[in-house]
Amino acid sequence: MTAQPVPAPERPGRAEDITFNAIGRVENAFDEMVAPDCIRATPSRIVLDSQLEAGLLGVEPGQQLMVIFYFHRSRGYELQQHPRGDLSRPRRGVFALRSPRRPNPIGVTVVDVLAVTRNVLDVRGLDAINGTPVLDLKPA
Amino acid sequence: MTAQPVPAPERPGRAEDITFNAIGRVENAFDEMVAPDCIRATPSRIVLDSQLEAGLLGVEPGQQLMVIFYFHRSRGYELQQHPRGDLSRPRRGVFALRSPRRPNPIGVTVVDVLAVTRNVLDVRGLDAINGTPVLDLKPA
Repeated sequence: MTAQPVPAPERPGRAEDITFNAIGRVENAFDEMVAPDCIRATPSRIVLDSQLEAGLLGVEPGQQLMVIFYFHRSRGYELQQHPRGDLSRPRRGVFALRSPRRPNPIGVTVVDVLAVTRNVLDVRGLDAINGTPVLDLKPA
Repeated sequence: MTAQPVPAPERPGRAEDITFNAIGRVENAFDEMVAPDCIRATPSRIVLDSQLEAGLLGVEPGQQLMVIFYFHRSRGYELQQHPRGDLSRPRRGVFALRSPRRPNPIGVTVVDVLAVTRNVLDVRGLDAINGTPVLDLKPA
């Protein structure tokens, strides 16, 4: 941090709500959060809204895809948290962590596309639990 | 695409709205969209809500940071679009493109952190225009 003072804005971002609808859901065997590495090691399915199927043109097995999702089970947050909840590690700011407990509980993970069947993607590397709402997919 | 049929879900994601508040705003010289490469070449400022400043502990100059933002000027979308609006290139699905015109107009860009001063980040590599609401920051 540099010492140069910057005038504090008056809550610049809080003037409006920003509303999204899920484009689909995650399906896998994990109904509760476990270690992210464990979820990532198992293939997951992303079932898109069937009306959005045409949006997958050009998404092919073997590619990487960025999955943006909503941590729908996350409730509240602290601005500084111990990494992975490990009390032996010093607290860090939430914006220096990937904790699901954040001001806007958005997750971003790059996955490997295994198969694309109509509106359904089979992927590997996703660390979201069963039922997670998906907000967007982008080229990684 | 494989031939295996998959039953279509009944709009699985549309049951609920997902609402976020901006955590801050982008400040730069670009009030209108120009070529993303042009915006990226110029440093931008991210002014966080001052109440969230503590969340930056551990975000340091020299690091890369993932910026998740809201394409607030984007209106509507097509499921298949010409890449970068270039009619000479075949249409692709919106989920195989980074177009701002998408079902949920969310942008994700990895930036270089140049400076952190209280609740203000100077960054390079951001391709969002002036006034863009920022939704989240994560380690890249």
